[in-house]
This record gives sequence, C-alpha cells and structure tokens, in this order.
Amino acid sequence: MALSKKPVNGMRDILPAEMELRDYVTGVIKDTYRSFGFTPIETPCMENIANLSNKQGGENEKLIFKVLKRGEKLNLETATAEADVVDFGMRYDLTVPLSRYYANNSNNLPMPFKALQIGSVWRADRPQRGRYRQFTQCDIDIIGEPGNLAEIELITATTTCIGRLGFEDFEIHINDRRILKAMAAYSGFAEREFDNIFIILDKMDKIGADGVAAELAADGYAQESIGKYLARFALLADKRDVKEGVSALAEALGIAVSAKGNLESANKATSADSAVSASSEASAETVADARSEEYLSANATSEKTVIITNTSISGASVDASPAAAESVSSLAELRAAIDAVKSLVEIATAVEAAKGAKFSLVFDPTLVRGMSYYTGTIFEIVMPGLGAACGGGGRYDGMVGKFTGKDVPACGFSIGFERLILLLAESGYQIPERPKRTAYLVDKKCTADKLADVMRQAKEARESGQQVLVVRMNKNKKFQKEQLAAEGYEEFVEFFA
Amino acid sequence: MALSKKPVNGMRDILPAEMELRDYVTGVIKDTYRSFGFTPIETPCMENIANLSNKQGGENEKLIFKVLKRGEKLNLETATAEADVVDFGMRYDLTVPLSRYYANNSNNLPMPFKALQIGSVWRADRPQRGRYRQFTQCDIDIIGEPGNLAEIELITATTTCIGRLGFEDFEIHINDRRILKAMAAYSGFAEREFDNIFIILDKMDKIGADGVAAELAADGYAQESIGKYLARFALLADKRDVKEGVSALAEALGIAVSAKGNLESANKATSADSAVSASSEASAETVADARSEEYLSANATSEKTVIITNTSISGASVDASPAAAESVSSLAELRAAIDAVKSLVEIATAVEAAKGAKFSLVFDPTLVRGMSYYTGTIFEIVMPGLGAACGGGGRYDGMVGKFTGKDVPACGFSIGFERLILLLAESGYQIPERPKRTAYLVDKKCTADKLADVMRQAKEARESGQQVLVVRMNKNKKFQKEQLAAEGYEEFVEFFA
Repeated sequence: MALSKKPVNGMRDILPAEMELRDYVTGVIKDTYRSFGFTPIETPCMENIANLSNKQGGENEKLIFKVLKRGEKLNLETATAEADVVDFGMRYDLTVPLSRYYANNSNNLPMPFKALQIGSVWRADRPQRGRYRQFTQCDIDIIGEPGNLAEIELITATTTCIGRLGFEDFEIHINDRRILKAMAAYSGFAEREFDNIFIILDKMDKIGADGVAAELAADGYAQESIGKYLARFALLADKRDVKEGVSALAEALGIAVSAKGNLESANKATSADSAVSASSEASAETVADARSEEYLSANATSEKTVIITNTSISGASVDASPAAAESVSSLAELRAAIDAVKSLVEIATAVEAAKGAKFSLVFDPTLVRGMSYYTGTIFEIVMPGLGAACGGGGRYDGMVGKFTGKDVPACGFSIGFERLILLLAESGYQIPERPKRTAYLVDKKCTADKLADVMRQAKEARESGQQVLVVRMNKNKKFQKEQLAAEGYEEFVEFFA
Repeated sequence: MALSKKPVNGMRDILPAEMELRDYVTGVIKDTYRSFGFTPIETPCMENIANLSNKQGGENEKLIFKVLKRGEKLNLETATAEADVVDFGMRYDLTVPLSRYYANNSNNLPMPFKALQIGSVWRADRPQRGRYRQFTQCDIDIIGEPGNLAEIELITATTTCIGRLGFEDFEIHINDRRILKAMAAYSGFAEREFDNIFIILDKMDKIGADGVAAELAADGYAQESIGKYLARFALLADKRDVKEGVSALAEALGIAVSAKGNLESANKATSADSAVSASSEASAETVADARSEEYLSANATSEKTVIITNTSISGASVDASPAAAESVSSLAELRAAIDAVKSLVEIATAVEAAKGAKFSLVFDPTLVRGMSYYTGTIFEIVMPGLGAACGGGGRYDGMVGKFTGKDVPACGFSIGFERLILLLAESGYQIPERPKRTAYLVDKKCTADKLADVMRQAKEARESGQQVLVVRMNKNKKFQKEQLAAEGYEEFVEFFA
C-alpha cells in the first residue's frame, strides 16, 4: 500500500519559518511567566475517558479523539457501544488535566500553586481554514488562592507577556459569573434556566440586543423578564471602564457602591453587608433614601459603603414576576454580586498600577465564556481587528473537588497561542536578536583532513554564538546561496580542496 | 462517577522540579542544535494508521495506541477487525513522521534539510519502572546529504550537546550496516537470513559470544558459518579505536586498507577499487601476496591503497560453504563494506578534529540497532554506568522513498532524552545561572491601594530579571518561608497594611 504524504485530516505540519516564530513566542511566554513565579508542569496527552466526560467541558466533550483499548481488553465481537472499546481519550483542554494533576500531587506541590502548561490539545472539530484538530494551548493557573490576588497576577502576567510580543492597544474584558447570575435573577429568570440564558447572552456581540431578545422569546421566557434583563445591559453598554461599569451595574441592580471601591471600603462594606438581612425587611422608601444618599458619584472623594437595596427582592415588581418564589436565592445572588463588584474594582486598581503593557481593562457585562466550570471572575483577551477572543479564563473553584471531594479555589488564564502566532505571522513580525547565520560551503573534492579543518573552524564560530551551517557546495553555487539567503544566512565562506 | 486522580496507566505527571530540569535541558539542546544550523519542525502526534504499519518500525508497530474513527465513519455493529474502527494512530517515533513531513513539504524545504524535532511519542509497552508509555524523543536528521558530512555533523552536534550538559567520558559506538552484511556474507550466511542473524548478534553485550553461538546453532545455521562469523568478531573485540578497528576488520574480511584512510587515499582507492573485478579472477596466492604487501601497519607512513582480496569469494572455502551460490552478492557486500570502512575512517578524522566534548568514538562491530530501516552508518551513545544506550541513530536512505517513490538520502541521531534527564536528576545536577528568586509575602489586611504598590514593586524586580512570587502571608509565616526556600526562593520581602 502506498503511504500517505499528507498529515491526518485536520492536522498539519509546521514548517521551519513558523516553527522559529513559535519557539520564540514560547520562549517569551515561559520567561515572562517564570518571572511571575509560575512553574512549568506537564501531564500526559491522554486522560481516562471518564475524566473527559464529566460534563465540565461543555461542547468539547463531543469532540474527543478516543483511544482504542489494547490486547485482551479489546473485544470487538461483543462490543456494541463506544465505551466497550475505549479506555483513554485525548485531552481537549489543559484545565481538566491540571485539576487531576493537582488532586494527584497536591502533597508535593506548593500552596498556592502557580502552574504553567504549554501543550497540544485535540478536538475532532470539522476541519476548516485556520482551525486545526491539534493545536497548542498555553495556560497559567493559580490553585489554592481564594482571593483576587490570583486574578491580579494572572491578568498582569498575561498582559505583560502579550505586550512583550509587541502587541498594544488590546483589551482585557472582565466580568463575573456571580454578576451574570444576579442580573438573571434580578430580571426574574429561574436559576435552572441560567445556563441557557447565558448561552444566548453570549451571542450579544454577534446578533445584538434584538437578536438576544428574539432568541430568549423563542425559548419561551416571559417578555417582562427579557425586557428588564436587556434594559439593564443597555444601561451598561457604554460603561467600559471597570469602576464606572461596576458602579452602573450596582445601580442597575439596586446596589450602591463605593466610588473608590478599594480594600478599605470593602472592609467597611463587610460590616455594612451584615445589615442586608435586616434591611431586606425595610420599606422600599427607606431603601430609596439610602440609595440616593449613598449613590455613586464619579467625583466623590469621601468613602462610601456598599448597601444593598431590597427593591428587587421584596418589592411589588418581584411579587408579580415568575421569580417571586426565588426571592431568597435572589438575595444570595445579590450578596454574591456585591462581592463580585468589590472584587472587580480591586482587581482593576492593582492591575492598573502594575501594567506591563499598553492595554485597557474593560468591564463587559455580556461576557459569558463557554465552559460551565467557571464560578467567579471571567476574562477574555480582545485584540484590535480580530473577530474572536485571543484567549481567556476565569475562576473555577469547583473543579479540583470533582477529583478529591474537597473544593480548592482555582483560577486560570489561557493565551490563544495559535491566534497570537497567526497575528504575528500576518503582520510580518521579525524575531529580535537572532544570532548571526553563516553558511560554510565545502567543495566536494575536499579531503578528510580539509574537512576536519572546516569542522574545527565551525566549532569556534559556533562557540562564539554564531549559527553555522556546513554544507557541500553545489554545482550551481549562485542558486545555492540565494536559497540560503532566503533562510536567513547572511555570510558565506567557501572551502576548496 | 468518581473521577480518577491518577494519570492513565503507564503515563505520568511531571512535577515542577523535574520539569525545570527538562526545560533547561531542552533549551541547551535547542541552542546547540540551532548553532549547527538545524531548524525545529513539528508534525502532528497522530499519523494515518497505514503509515505506522509499514514494517519499518520493527517491534514498535505492535505497540501503537490506535485512535477510534469518529461519527458516521464508526460502525461498531459490523466491525470485526481493528482496521474497521481505527483510522489514526499515535506516532511511536519521530522518524516515520519526519519522512512523511519531508515527502509532503520538500518543495518548501532547503536541500539538504537539517531538522530538529523534540516531541512526545507513545508506545503501549507493558508499564514498568522508569519506562513510560508516553515519553519525549529528541531527534536531529539531515535529509538530502548522501555523503558522510551528515554523519560528521550529527555526531559532532550531539556530542557537543551532551558535553554542554556536563557529561564526559562517554562513548559513541559506530558501525555500518554494510559491514554487518559483509561479515555475514563472508561467513557464508544467506542474505535472507541477515535480519535474524543481526537480531541475535545484537545480544552480544548481554549473552556473550557463546550465547550468540548457541542461539545461532539453535536456529539451525551451519556450525562452520557460526565459527567463522564469531572468530572475526573475536579478532575485533579489543580494537576500539575506529581506525585500528576498521583496519582489523578489513583484515578480517580480507581487505587491505590505507593506514591513513583519509580522502586522498580514498580517492586513490577508488581507482584501485576498479581492479576488484579483475582481481577476483586472480589466484589466492597473488592475493595473499598483495595482502602481505599492502597489509595495514599502524606505523606506516607511506600511503597504501585499498585492495579487495578474493579468497573469500572464489576460494575453496567458499565453494564448500552454503553461500557459494551467492558469491556475486558477497562481492557486492564486500564492495559496500570497503565504502563503509573508508567512510568510518573519514568520519573519525573529522569528528576527532571538531570535538566539543570529552568522549571517544569507538568502532563496535557488534552494534546492530533495532530498526530495520537503517541502510548504512549506525551509532549509539554509551554512558558510563548506564546499562542501556542513551540514544542512537544512523542512515536510512530508503524511507523517504516509501512516501514519494524516489529515495532520498537521510541520516539521523536521536538523543535518549528521558535517560539523560534520569542521569542528571540522579546525579543531583544543579541548573547553572538560575535567576534570583524573591518571594513577596503580603499581609491579608493590605488594602487594594497597598496591593497596587506591591504589584508595582514586583513589576520593577521582574523587569530587572528576578523571579518574583507574590503570595498572601500565611498565619504560620515560618513554615511558609521554609516551604518557599525549598522551592528555591532566597529572599523574602514582607508587606503589611
């Protein structure tokens, strides 16, 4: 049988020029992340198939390349389902393997653990231009840090990295799953519907508010909830600065928030916070007063504390809504949203202070992120002129617990490695500080002794940092040199017998 | 279903300390090979299953992890054989993928093409201590160079690499498949039996000459051939220097060879060579004269030419041997062996001249190498105190042709990456020039503003080349610092509210 020259369908060979770029980018990424104290780790490319089919991976679980059982374990005669013949699968991301790795090795790992993983993942997507079935992911994760120091470090490290590759004027969009939930609860959607609602909301940038409204209506949700939901997003649409954005959000949800929103006010907020259950019994009028008094002003210089208003919880509008029975859970959602709002302001403050690149941190209330495992902050890299996100991540405090029975806080950020490479390649990016390339052309008549001399000379040049290619001189020397020049060889030395 | 914390059976998680070593070693390897003009490439981890089952991979073809077909292509109801349900397989080495890659992309690659590949391969071996089912291979290959400049560059680059990692007093064993064949032909074995004979010969270092003799006898080979075969190896047993070794070999095969053996003598040899067919008609006496006259002397200062003696081909002893009918092919084997002998001497001369490490190049006539795709020179890295080879390679001029129908010369050298790592880890190897590691311990009460200050300070230290870890201060600060010190953090800075 003739052998196939082509790579398997949907995967590809990487040619030297691209590979050089990939290696350079990988080096910058590793150096940068190491300087932030992230330590590289590696997991096998295969996982037990049950680990990959635990409903955490969303759509990706449908795209697993499965590995056939071997030897006596394989019985094709009696097999009727895939599960009968499969024991392993190729990983579709690096987050599931990391969680398993942490569960397996936590006794031998620092706490918190800052991991860097760069590796291939596989998804049996329909092959299409620019999307491959094997591609590189590049993740940093902090496991065991419950506070937003994790988010701050992840965002600072990742943006520094992207900046060092020459990108500027990009954006980091940030949101929090707790805010998404509070917005949905506030609008009267039932909690069991949140996942579906978020999937539709996620299309906002593609189909617009009208499109989202139409899809929500098509799925049978109450027009009142849809209207309330989208009105809140409309209020936030042009609030891109994080502090402005979350303040407007708080207003939209009936929360007043400190203009400064730093840890001091957060601490005060904690005590004010305990007044929530009490105030939830108060009348709408009292709350409205408190709201006007504490209302956020962008120019405020005095510290203000966070107060929850209960209009949305005990007010008449809620009684009339389908979510009336869920007012207690809505209260929990709002409490969580307050934490999220405080946290986002803190993150923005620290990230702004330690910026290692030209970028903007932007509050994006419509940011959803596909994976169902996220529990808190979520973020995404948005590059100018690129239709899709160039990476993202968030907090997933529940995943390690799937392996150990005990939850461990975790937060990660994944750079869109393949998209970065594509952007750099298309922009004609030149790798800086490349070693000098010299080609030694050796006449075919050279004796073994002469060749030994050539090798000795090459040794010295190589030790001095040059890249030296020793090749036989072709008959068409001019053509040979042109080819070598195209590969980046600048100098040619000829050796004759 | 509870998820498994363990990696899949036979594969493993790599912890930070080992990963740091692996990354460092990978860096040294890449830098060294790049300085020799090798360019990194990458191929998919999967290949079409037919490409992996083409009888080139020897035993490894039995160890393939196979990938299940997907979607409509998969029909388990009607499947009776593996081939019905499998389309891809995990690569078991990097040589088959490289050959396919070259066949697929040769129009866009330089000629000759010097490739560097570092990547995972998979073999479904029975799991055992120190042997894993996913492991890293690290190969350099030169495609398109028919002459031994390829071997010279491969051996020089690889030994330089190993030397830079601190190894010394290691050996590169070298042999040539053409010599193996000539030795077998000379002893009267039929060509169709060569592969089996080489597999037995390969066990010489484990079972000794007596063991090899017993196994050959058990397989039914003529006692006379076995005796003749092993007597020749006995003659060579203590000739470890390449030039001495190949001279003794030439003698053993009835070839006289120039003491200097460099290209000049090789050139003369070429013309002398053409006398072979004529001399094959000469009497044994004439040849014996020629042999004594041209006999190699280590002290010879005058150049001597290579003459084939035909005692083994037309003499009485051959008529009596089972290989009598194959005297013509034996002659071809001997001609090829002459080329091999000349080539080994040239390789030794140039490699010795450009040595970048303390090692010995050693002629090892019992070196076989497992893969059946080798066609010429073969070599292996032998480390002091390590039972098995620490890498190896050779010339495989026939493999690219399996994909294109047209043979292209190719030669490769694979470093035993996993074994190198094991040796370094066991010797307590310390990575040189590691950046300074500083840990910032931040009190939990710090405000967002204070945290911003910390991040700003960390940014400066990171930009100056330090590795800075920012973590929350634990209650048990002493223990926390001890843990961090164990991870290599030398300095601690504490921040309070």
